[in-house]
Amino acid sequence: MAKDRLIIFDTTLRDGEQSPGASMTRDEKVRIAKMLEKMGVDVIEAGFAIASIGDFESVRAVAETVQNSIVCSLARTGAEDIDRAAEALKPAAAGRIHTFIATSPIHMEYKLRMAPDNVLERAVAAVKHARNLIGDVEFSCEDASRSEYDFMCRIIEQVINAGARTINLPDTVGYGEPGEYGAMVARIMNGVPNADKAIFSVHCHNDLGLAVANSLSAVMHGARQVECTINGLGERAGNASLEELVMAIRTRSDIFPVEVSVDATQIVPTSRLVSSITGFPVQPNKAIVGANAFAHESGIHQDGVLKYRETYEIMRAEDVGWNANKLVLGKHSGRAAFKARLADLGITLDNQAALNLAFTRFKELADKKHEIFDEDLQALMNDVQPDDLELRYSYVALEAVSRSGFKPRADIQLLIDGQAQQAAAEGDGPVDAAFKAVELLVNSGANLLLYSVNAITEGTDSQGEVQVRLEKNGSIVNGNGADTDIIVASVKAYLDALNLLDAGVLKAHPQHEGV
Amino acid sequence: MAKDRLIIFDTTLRDGEQSPGASMTRDEKVRIAKMLEKMGVDVIEAGFAIASIGDFESVRAVAETVQNSIVCSLARTGAEDIDRAAEALKPAAAGRIHTFIATSPIHMEYKLRMAPDNVLERAVAAVKHARNLIGDVEFSCEDASRSEYDFMCRIIEQVINAGARTINLPDTVGYGEPGEYGAMVARIMNGVPNADKAIFSVHCHNDLGLAVANSLSAVMHGARQVECTINGLGERAGNASLEELVMAIRTRSDIFPVEVSVDATQIVPTSRLVSSITGFPVQPNKAIVGANAFAHESGIHQDGVLKYRETYEIMRAEDVGWNANKLVLGKHSGRAAFKARLADLGITLDNQAALNLAFTRFKELADKKHEIFDEDLQALMNDVQPDDLELRYSYVALEAVSRSGFKPRADIQLLIDGQAQQAAAEGDGPVDAAFKAVELLVNSGANLLLYSVNAITEGTDSQGEVQVRLEKNGSIVNGNGADTDIIVASVKAYLDALNLLDAGVLKAHPQHEGV
Repeated sequence: MAKDRLIIFDTTLRDGEQSPGASMTRDEKVRIAKMLEKMGVDVIEAGFAIASIGDFESVRAVAETVQNSIVCSLARTGAEDIDRAAEALKPAAAGRIHTFIATSPIHMEYKLRMAPDNVLERAVAAVKHARNLIGDVEFSCEDASRSEYDFMCRIIEQVINAGARTINLPDTVGYGEPGEYGAMVARIMNGVPNADKAIFSVHCHNDLGLAVANSLSAVMHGARQVECTINGLGERAGNASLEELVMAIRTRSDIFPVEVSVDATQIVPTSRLVSSITGFPVQPNKAIVGANAFAHESGIHQDGVLKYRETYEIMRAEDVGWNANKLVLGKHSGRAAFKARLADLGITLDNQAALNLAFTRFKELADKKHEIFDEDLQALMNDVQPDDLELRYSYVALEAVSRSGFKPRADIQLLIDGQAQQAAAEGDGPVDAAFKAVELLVNSGANLLLYSVNAITEGTDSQGEVQVRLEKNGSIVNGNGADTDIIVASVKAYLDALNLLDAGVLKAHPQHEGV
Repeated sequence: MAKDRLIIFDTTLRDGEQSPGASMTRDEKVRIAKMLEKMGVDVIEAGFAIASIGDFESVRAVAETVQNSIVCSLARTGAEDIDRAAEALKPAAAGRIHTFIATSPIHMEYKLRMAPDNVLERAVAAVKHARNLIGDVEFSCEDASRSEYDFMCRIIEQVINAGARTINLPDTVGYGEPGEYGAMVARIMNGVPNADKAIFSVHCHNDLGLAVANSLSAVMHGARQVECTINGLGERAGNASLEELVMAIRTRSDIFPVEVSVDATQIVPTSRLVSSITGFPVQPNKAIVGANAFAHESGIHQDGVLKYRETYEIMRAEDVGWNANKLVLGKHSGRAAFKARLADLGITLDNQAALNLAFTRFKELADKKHEIFDEDLQALMNDVQPDDLELRYSYVALEAVSRSGFKPRADIQLLIDGQAQQAAAEGDGPVDAAFKAVELLVNSGANLLLYSVNAITEGTDSQGEVQVRLEKNGSIVNGNGADTDIIVASVKAYLDALNLLDAGVLKAHPQHEGV
């Protein structure tokens, strides 16, 4: 018997981006969207078009790029929200408007300050308006898990009549328990007379560690779309993670009544890309995508693995893309191989100048480092995006000295608006000194929230990838920089963050919200 | 109606330590055990006594220290395993032997190469032997979720008759689905005639992201002990995380039939201690203990939080210990305040020399940094454990220079076996140069597996905490070092790792295994 298809709706670019510090530029969103498309994700929620100009442009850029997945924008119930979403989605091969309003007593009373009947009216009007602009409309009852049954049935019946094709029942605050949450989905699907005219969807948050289990329980009870993110990124403790959902359904195909059509071998590369762009590390013990997920420490476990693989392994590492990116470039690799490898990583360079710049940096790196792994390329490319060519601040040179008994000192040279400038400062460490020297020239007034470094590949010649998170007037940006010299990587990351602040890429999210 | 009590069995020190790269020294284990005791964890599994001398000594040291929690050692079914566990547990105020054998067809056939009847015989003999040595014995059916029902009922009935007080049904390979797994627990409890004479326990792995959900489902179906770890540490994708289990049960006390007696405000400090000791970062979107778990990015969510707290918050950050460690020391803090704060962090210094050394380093740090947070202290103390005083390699001084156009260079001075020695080297970056200079003196032959840095507190004067993971002949060690100068912190971490390798602290886990 053919199984139902489960629709995978990825919201890494919308709910995932709402994680404090995980903001992404338009080009970064396009790179991730291309990977999601390659993976075969059914729906890509690209942003919340009305939230900011940056969000609007990101949704539009993703809509222009992606051909094989539905591209979606979030919108509240107001006409202007929906119009803006429809406009951003115009270039899409297949577009969806996802509109939502809170249906729980606590949200209606304290956040919306609206009576239930008004909420219902607005929901129906929003869906009708959206359907006039686009064929594919999803409606979410925000905070469904704390909403009243009768009211949800009423509102859902009417929005389906108004043309909603997908009904989403989010566990907005991560309060659900699997048995209870699955039962709620089943009860609503039974209680809504026209439920068969829509796909029921869930969107679970992980505050109690139950997002994946709640989603799977809902699937057992009739849901046929799950909203999820790569690495479980998302507000607070994040959303259900795509990789865990997909692999649970695949691994336990004996009990789940659905199948998913994503190419799981793209999971690990996509996880790394998202981690590298957001600067959010994946902890080693994260299921599926953590560095230890397929590693066995204990002696007898290892022995067991050798004796018979399935004694301890229920999945194969290669099925989720581990080892997929061992393909290595070196100093003799040509421009074609370099470009092809970038394309595999979802990176295309728009013009010859950008490709030339990237290739030059690749060659510089290859001089210092024997083998260039995919992670090295991704780090390198975080430095060499096309819009790099017109950035305000760029790195030229530095000298940094640490000597016991003296204060560490850094001399730096930057290009600022095309002008070479230099400065020197002392600090508590050479990185601190270098940042202080940059600030002597830039005077950004930004606060340093986070500084972290990871060696991207193994060995002493590996590149260091530095993340710097800066905050200014409520905007938070994440800068990345990579170099075999940690001080140079740090300055690059700091300048990257300053450029992001300067470009105003990172909206203050004045109207962000979610489900 | 009074609820049943759920026994919290923490295995951070046993299964958690089996994560590749998470090995801990005896003193580190004691520090974590003290925090777990302070938190009110019911049972602390401290190690696998027969696995190595280091494991044995760790179990014994924890048994000597902990007064208010049961201290447990793992043991296979052989008499020598059980004798060794009993010996290590002798000093314990309350000790438990946890013996196990695999009961699934695949494990019995391919790993044990034993017939089911022999497995049963060995299990019964082991429990009887253990009960002759200690009053509290737990028995685990390894790979229970893939074992046959009739066989499990038989073996469980007989080990209960032999004196086992706790029966554990582990999902060793993380294959379970909550509905199915809970039903298995209920079915076994119904099928075993003397089930009322034992507490049923679960131990779930997170390979599919379902460890917490599986554990909670088992609790719904009658289990009254859960085995779990801080931060979900453990083999592969880890175990059910203690913090998620405890907070799910507390937050959803309306539906869970049990209560837990742990002090949840110790969760965040303990999470940080474990992360700092193992060098495993906690990802920002980790439930409960991630940096973003209680942070709200989106504008309207923030607005909602301000309007009425419960619109988006189902737990309070302070309930799990966020903000609990804002107490700050400064350069004018005295020795008493310093010592008291260390005690709060579970750190006691055995002798005056160690306290003096720690206090001196604290003062040095306070000269460079205005406010000393708990994280700073923990990082500092990772450098100043008592056994520090007799380490083979220690840091004296360095000079490191990065200059554009030249190879980075480092000059270092070390004490090796009490002798001052120095060396200089060039490298791809100043850290690489410093490590090469160390290797000129030490010639360790170790491989660098991981290098990472985190700024421990906010601001440019924060300390950098470096983790260095080295591998040699199959042993993996994690070295930590903290300093406001990242190069100095890196050298300290590298030397720490070399000292660990040298001390052989990190057993090759020749006989490690688990449930």
